[in-house]
Amino acid sequence: MLFLKKEDIEASFNMRDAIDACKEALKLYSEGKANVPLRTNISVDKQAGQSLYMPAYVEDEKDALGVKIVSVYPKNIEKNIPSVPATMITLDAETGIVSAILDGTYLTQLRTGAVQGAATELMASRDAKIGALIGTGGQAECQLWAMLTARKLEEVRIFDIDFTRASEFAKSMEEKYKVKMIPCETAEKCVTGADIITSVTTSKQATFSNDWVKKGAHINGVGAYTPEMCEIPKETIKAADKIIFDTMDGVLAEAGDFIQPLELGFVSREDYQGELGELVLGKIKSRESEEEITIFKTVGSAVLDVYVANKIVEQAAVKGLGQELS
Amino acid sequence: MLFLKKEDIEASFNMRDAIDACKEALKLYSEGKANVPLRTNISVDKQAGQSLYMPAYVEDEKDALGVKIVSVYPKNIEKNIPSVPATMITLDAETGIVSAILDGTYLTQLRTGAVQGAATELMASRDAKIGALIGTGGQAECQLWAMLTARKLEEVRIFDIDFTRASEFAKSMEEKYKVKMIPCETAEKCVTGADIITSVTTSKQATFSNDWVKKGAHINGVGAYTPEMCEIPKETIKAADKIIFDTMDGVLAEAGDFIQPLELGFVSREDYQGELGELVLGKIKSRESEEEITIFKTVGSAVLDVYVANKIVEQAAVKGLGQELS
Repeated sequence: MLFLKKEDIEASFNMRDAIDACKEALKLYSEGKANVPLRTNISVDKQAGQSLYMPAYVEDEKDALGVKIVSVYPKNIEKNIPSVPATMITLDAETGIVSAILDGTYLTQLRTGAVQGAATELMASRDAKIGALIGTGGQAECQLWAMLTARKLEEVRIFDIDFTRASEFAKSMEEKYKVKMIPCETAEKCVTGADIITSVTTSKQATFSNDWVKKGAHINGVGAYTPEMCEIPKETIKAADKIIFDTMDGVLAEAGDFIQPLELGFVSREDYQGELGELVLGKIKSRESEEEITIFKTVGSAVLDVYVANKIVEQAAVKGLGQELS
Repeated sequence: MLFLKKEDIEASFNMRDAIDACKEALKLYSEGKANVPLRTNISVDKQAGQSLYMPAYVEDEKDALGVKIVSVYPKNIEKNIPSVPATMITLDAETGIVSAILDGTYLTQLRTGAVQGAATELMASRDAKIGALIGTGGQAECQLWAMLTARKLEEVRIFDIDFTRASEFAKSMEEKYKVKMIPCETAEKCVTGADIITSVTTSKQATFSNDWVKKGAHINGVGAYTPEMCEIPKETIKAADKIIFDTMDGVLAEAGDFIQPLELGFVSREDYQGELGELVLGKIKSRESEEEITIFKTVGSAVLDVYVANKIVEQAAVKGLGQELS
């Protein structure tokens, strides 16, 4: 049994690896080769917390099997500990024996960045130069890293409702990734003229206006994960030429920005083309011109956790990383 | 995060501790203080295997939370590895953070022995002197240990369809527990005159005859865990004065020896008095005379795993046992 901390995962697997693994995972999912049972949710009322168990199995040359354990404990913030701690357990699908325990918090950040990176790679204009990132919370860095891995961007504009935070984030990211980062005082400055727009917030209203979206832009909706949350303007959803999800079932059950316009009759189910895995398979079309506006929405899936985690464990074993537990 | 091997569990928690923890766990269960969601079952058809995820939560002074991962891989035997490997994960219910990883195989053995020990303590004649153990597989030792912890036995008769195996088991157990162990060539010799009879097999027919059961005997059914399996003769079930289960739902869904007589109309639902937790609570009656025949049946429950595991983790932390993972 291998124990992999964040540092071990970082040394085993970079964003390029993670993007490729996410493409493969969603391809297998769309081919019907994944079994993702309904997650089990245990309420811990005393703490106003929830403990979620998300197992999955993916058939592949080397099958992937495992479970992510995620707790949602908002009151942890008062105790100065993570409010959504996660742990990933992988099993060897050939023997059913637990093979590794991974830092699930970092795994989630990495695969959430990577799935957006996969979509950006497959959907954004090849000549994209300007990125826009809305939201600088804990998930922001991996989204930025994925954008930079998917396209050679010349600059990324950073917006947050807290400008100081945006400035600090931009400064530290510019140092780390050696790409120009521009903190913006308004979302309008951030989004106007951007080729790739990524929103990663828990907002309940659109984080930008459709008026600011240029022709040919690609938009990633990453944050909103409940039916009440909404990041992408419904006008943009209406106007977009291609709208692709990580999983159709997941987005239509959880993402307010795509559920609400459907329920209002503002768009129809046919406006949502399909899944990223179908794009990888070539079953549906991506961008067909430099003018098209494309949207990708992810709410995540255990198939990503389990598949990416198993690939990380493979790589860590090859590289001799992590702590071996007898 | 604490990593506890079998040796760490053994050093943290003995059978006495485990019996007490099982009584408490089933008491809380019968009081409605446990949340045990339906387990999730993933089939891995390529290996003819199954991977089971069994989370549970028990409200107590210190709440218990966790998940047992059990794989059932019959073909592992060909590879000379365990066919039912298990791993237990506990979480700190106050923070939702994973607190420990335990050897789930040994935990299962310990708590399965202990729940039978709890029942034996609460139901068998106080003067029981002679034990009978049917089956000498991987689970047998913990059942024997529990019988010896629950009552001061003078001898235990051991039966297995493989007499050589019974003899070897008896010899090594006598050395270890310093109690006379008698290997028996027939089940009749084993059971006749025994005060406590424990059957731990996967038999599809009764492992003994009702004619051999003495007045006042207490019987533990531990092995049969599918509707096709059956260890206890239906005549004994009919004749018994008290029949108690670990969980009513579990036994009536899984244990053939108790489902079949009910379906045949040989006994009625009222012949099954209730749950061990209700006995602990004093809501139902245990043995009322030295003449009564009492039966306990266990199929196990995640509530036992989660509660016992959390107690083990507490004790291991106090004693500084196990490996601390950062």
